[in-house]
Parts: sequence; structure tokens; C-alpha cells
Amino acid sequence: MYDKQTIMLPGPVTIHPRVLSAMSKPMINHRGEEFGQIYDYCVKNLRDIFRTKNDLFLLTGSGTCAMEASLGNLLNSEDKILVIINGKFGERFKEIGERYGELVSLEYEWGRSIDLEDVKAKLDEGDVKAVTLVHNETSAGIINPAPEIGKLAKEKGALFIMDGVSSIGGNDVYADDWDVDIAVFGSQKCLAAPPGLSAISIGKRAWEVIEECKDRPYYTDLLKYRDSASKKPPQTPYTPAVSLFFALEEAIKIFLEEGIEENIERHRKYSDAIRAAITEMGLTMFPQLNGYSHYSNTVNAINLPKGIKEAEVKNKLREKGIIISGGQGRLKDKIFRIGTMGYLSPEDMVNVISALELVLKDLKYDINVGRAVEKANDILFG
Amino acid sequence: MYDKQTIMLPGPVTIHPRVLSAMSKPMINHRGEEFGQIYDYCVKNLRDIFRTKNDLFLLTGSGTCAMEASLGNLLNSEDKILVIINGKFGERFKEIGERYGELVSLEYEWGRSIDLEDVKAKLDEGDVKAVTLVHNETSAGIINPAPEIGKLAKEKGALFIMDGVSSIGGNDVYADDWDVDIAVFGSQKCLAAPPGLSAISIGKRAWEVIEECKDRPYYTDLLKYRDSASKKPPQTPYTPAVSLFFALEEAIKIFLEEGIEENIERHRKYSDAIRAAITEMGLTMFPQLNGYSHYSNTVNAINLPKGIKEAEVKNKLREKGIIISGGQGRLKDKIFRIGTMGYLSPEDMVNVISALELVLKDLKYDINVGRAVEKANDILFG
Repeated sequence: MYDKQTIMLPGPVTIHPRVLSAMSKPMINHRGEEFGQIYDYCVKNLRDIFRTKNDLFLLTGSGTCAMEASLGNLLNSEDKILVIINGKFGERFKEIGERYGELVSLEYEWGRSIDLEDVKAKLDEGDVKAVTLVHNETSAGIINPAPEIGKLAKEKGALFIMDGVSSIGGNDVYADDWDVDIAVFGSQKCLAAPPGLSAISIGKRAWEVIEECKDRPYYTDLLKYRDSASKKPPQTPYTPAVSLFFALEEAIKIFLEEGIEENIERHRKYSDAIRAAITEMGLTMFPQLNGYSHYSNTVNAINLPKGIKEAEVKNKLREKGIIISGGQGRLKDKIFRIGTMGYLSPEDMVNVISALELVLKDLKYDINVGRAVEKANDILFG
Repeated sequence: MYDKQTIMLPGPVTIHPRVLSAMSKPMINHRGEEFGQIYDYCVKNLRDIFRTKNDLFLLTGSGTCAMEASLGNLLNSEDKILVIINGKFGERFKEIGERYGELVSLEYEWGRSIDLEDVKAKLDEGDVKAVTLVHNETSAGIINPAPEIGKLAKEKGALFIMDGVSSIGGNDVYADDWDVDIAVFGSQKCLAAPPGLSAISIGKRAWEVIEECKDRPYYTDLLKYRDSASKKPPQTPYTPAVSLFFALEEAIKIFLEEGIEENIERHRKYSDAIRAAITEMGLTMFPQLNGYSHYSNTVNAINLPKGIKEAEVKNKLREKGIIISGGQGRLKDKIFRIGTMGYLSPEDMVNVISALELVLKDLKYDINVGRAVEKANDILFG
């Protein structure tokens, strides 16, 4: 009994038994009709979930693989790219960007809001070919102002590349309305499939730049993906992770049975409950918000109380069967993170809050056990 | 009943139910102890199967992803790379190589043997930093002379990069004895796991070059893989396809229960049976052998009889529940290919031969049904 685990990481997440079961179907021909239909189904429905009419491709690889596909296919070494950073995945775009183009960075402390005036000033320096933004900065639990930055980029004729890995399906995303030229996505986040697949959408303006790009990586060569996808039945240029496609197809079915809006609302409600509970416990959220940024629906980054170590909270929760995350990189021992993505019920939210109360009390933190649960119950079931 | 399929492609392959079942285990923390143990298990045992003591890493991506990792981490744009080509995957190394270095090609007709004198002559032109070879050319069903070419490369101070994707575990491979500096591997071939993971081994001489390389792709950056693997518990730099690791771990267990030698012997016996049957039918093998090359144990490439189309053979076999492959690229409608990899019994071999007899007869090919089955039975059960 005591090996039961509820995964509340910022991805990978707890997976629905229907998805686990779909994954164990016998192997099929990756060049045949049956695979083509699954590929088509995933593409068509992910486009709806991205809210885009752009082309969309699925890659066998993590979200980082799709991030590299975005910049690696776009930039020549002399092209300027504006990378906006307020967390680990913003930094990842920087690390990728400097391998392919000329970097212009706009860096904030992790978890601090982006100031649109700063973005405008950087764009005014001229000649920026593309702007990258991590919509939901998983490392810091903050939602960055994608629509506003998309608009600024468009005004200056720059492409807008958005990492939607941990937002698409869990936070509001309107890729086309926000002028997103390239959006990237990971299977193991809001859609609650296993990790190993990523997706990338490409708009018309982006294709024009991609076609002119002089060199690009091979495994993530988007021209090859476009070519293979146009075959009948559609294919991937290299052998796809067929079993993960079985899983993603089933995860999308489950997602759409609930509905796009309803999924987003669920993530919002779960995070509202966690934030109310956290506040009741006297803890504070990590992100520093301004008028444009928001707390994430999908990842709650919470400041660790003074004198309490990340490992203590994580390990004691793990003993109770709940797997949460600490801080990445420079945020180690400063925050802990509770994800709301995946196959989680409202009761799982109550469970993590209740367990956290006991853990904090055990660690000599001053707390009235039960109060935070009450707050969460009000939101979840009120 | 009639949807039952036996996959006899050159990968992906039919998968053992134990592997399918392992894949459907609940998700775990990809940064935790449990994942670290699985990663370690896969690395340790794949090293034994590669017959190498070199470092080895697992990537989430197809064999092509590992092929790109090999060249992308090694070459600066002015470095000469000798690419030996006698099939589609040799060409793939060429396509990758020309993105990263200065290409020297040694090209043969697909399926024709490599001449060691030609290799020597190209190396004698000087300054070659690395040589690539596809050990088992999946597209043509030919085993290329890896030990001999490894020796020539070493004599000239060039690194030897070997694609062992469809040979390791099914044909004899002795990576260290053959002076292989980098070997690559795919999960969906001789180990009969699902597609989506690849592996790469790196020797000391290769590390020295990799460390000096000025730029490299991001997703396949081997320095990041080395750094993450050295953590406790070991990690991957980017989120791994956890479920595929569950599957690979189980596939390796099954493989080792049979034994490395025994697995190779099984692939050899199955292919011997197919070749004997094919000859009995009056068909011919596609590869043109010399003293150094051999027929593959894992993929049998067979010339199509005159007047018979690839699609006819494939479709009629599919109606009988057997999935085989045609020719890739320029070999379309010239050959068909029967793989022996995966969870296949001797009876499955008899089955494909018997079905092929009936299909060819149905297509008005002159054949005495039953004779080829008899030949195969002698080898499989004699």
C-alpha cells in the first residue's frame, strides 16, 4: 500500500490508467495507415488546443528538442535574437540561441515580472529577427505577458517564438490571436501524457525565414518534418516513438472529453486552492508580479519558510506518497513547487495541502493544522 | 482474429508482452532514485552488449538523433570526415556530416560491398579526422567490414564512428576490440524495445576531440549528457521518455535471460532459414558480397522477381497478418525486406516463408509451394 505515489511535479505528471493502457498496445508499422491516422489525429487536435491554424509537427524528443528546432531552423549566425529571461527555461533559450545567432538578452531575476518598456527598448535598438518568450516559466511559476510581447514583436517585424510547454492546455493560450509565429509544447505537462514527445507549430512568416536559413540541425530539421508529413499516409522523417503516440492520442481524447476551457478552469481552480492554502499557512508565493504577469495555473512556486530545507519538505512528503519538486539551479533551497497538471482530482489537492500542513508542523513551523485544508475545500467544493 | 499482426520490419519490431506491460507502469520522478537505477541498469548492460568499457549515454530520440550526436559533437567546419556509403544510412551520415564538417565521400551502389583498398586510398589522402561506417546497412541487408575499417582508421589516427543501430545484439559486435571510438544504437531493433530511445558510446580518444569542438547542437550536446550522468542519482540533461526506459529495462532483462551469444545465434539461424528458403524459391539476395562483407543476420534484403511489384507482395502478406518492408528511396520496387529482429519464434519464420510461397504463387510466380518451408524447417528444427 505504501508504495502508492501521486506525482505533483511540474512534469512528468500522474498519468490516467487509460493512457498507460493505450501505451501497451502491440507495435505497428510506423509507415502504415494506422500510424498515419494517429499522427493526423494528434496534429489536428493539438492545433485546436494551441488555438492555431498553423502547421504543427510532432517530434520524438523533450520540449528542449522542440525549442532547439525553433531557433536552429530560423537563425543564421549574424541574425539577432532577443531572448527574454526570468527563469531557467528563458535561460535555456539563451543557451540555444547563442549557438545559432547573435544574442540580445533581456534578463531579470528569476520569477520577477517582465517590464514591457524594457522589451520595447530592446526592440527599438533595431534589427531583431526573433523574440523568444517562455509563456509559463516552469522554474518560477510565473505567467509572462505573451499577448503583449507578441504584439510588440509584430510591430517591429520580429518573429515571436513562444515556449508553451507548461501552459498550453492548462493556461489560456491563443497562439494565433497572440501573433505567435512558433509555439512549442511538451507531451508530459497539461495533456498528461508520458514524456518523450514534443510539438511545434509554424506560421507563414516563420516558414519564409526557415526556408532562407542557410544551415540547421539534422534531427530537428523542420523542412524534413514538413516533407514527411505531406506524404500519404503522413510520416515523421525519422522513426517515431510509436508507443508514445498511442499514449498521446488517448491523452488528447481524455482531454477533449473534458473540454479545452474546462481543463484550463480545472488547473486554475486547483492552483487557486493551493494559493489560498499557502497564504493561510503564512507562506508566500515566489513570483514577483506586476500588472502584466500572473501566477501560473500549472506550477505553484512557493518560498520555503526560513530555516526549512527543500529536501526536508520533499522527503517528508514523499514518505506520504506525494512527489513534489524543489527549485532548479539557483533556486535550489529557496522554493518548492507543486504542480497541478496531470490526472489529479480535487481530493489530491486537499491531500497535498493536508500533508504539507503536517510536514511543516513536524519541521517546527508554527501552524494550525486544518485551517489551510478548510480554505482549499471552500474553493474546490464551495 | 484477423487483426493479429506479426511485425517483421527492419524495426520497429514485434514486442514481448512483458515489455509492453512494463511500459504501462505508473509515472515516476525522472530525477529520483528509481529512475537513476533504471538508467544505470540500461547503461551498464548496454555496455556489455556493445562489448565496450567506454562511457555510454541514452538519448530520447531515434537512432538518427544519436547519429547526429556523434558527428555534431566532434567536427569543426574545417574538419575532414570520410563517410563510407553503400545504403540509405550511409547517406544519412553524409547528410549529417556535411552540416558539421568537410565531407570526403566513398560511395558505392547500395548493397555493394566496400573495398578496403578504396578506404585505404581515401585515408592516404590525409588529414581525415573521423571515418563513419554503417555496420549493418539496414536498407540493403549487408554487413560491412567494421573490424577491418576500424583498424585502418586507427592506423591513420582517425576516429572510427560506427552505426550499430541494427547490428548490436543481433550480429557480432565487439566495439572495443574493433577500435570503435563512437558506436550508436537504437532501442527498436535487436533488443526489441519500442522505438524512441537511442544510445551512444564514447571512447577516450573521442572525448578529447569532443572537448575541443567549438560548437555543437544543444539537444544532443554530449558534454551535457556526461555532466548529468555523473550526478547522484544519474540524470539526463532534458526530460527523458520515462516509460520507454521502463520498456528498455525489461527488454534488456529478457535479452540477457537468453544471453548475448544466444541472441546473435538466433538472428543468424532465422536469417539462414530465410536465405535457404529464398534460394529454394529461385529468388536472389540483394547484397553483392566480397570476401569482407556478409549477409545481415537481422535484415534480409531480397530482389523482387521480375514483373512483381513491391506493393503486391507487401499488401498480400499484410492480409495474412505479416508486416514486411519494401525498398527505401532508390530501392523502391527493387527489393523487399524481412527482418528477423524482435519477439519472433522459429514458427514465425516458417509462417512468413509459407505465406510468401502462397503470395508469389498467387502473383503467377512459378513456385512449388512447400519446398521452401521444408528447407527452412531443416535449418530451424533439424
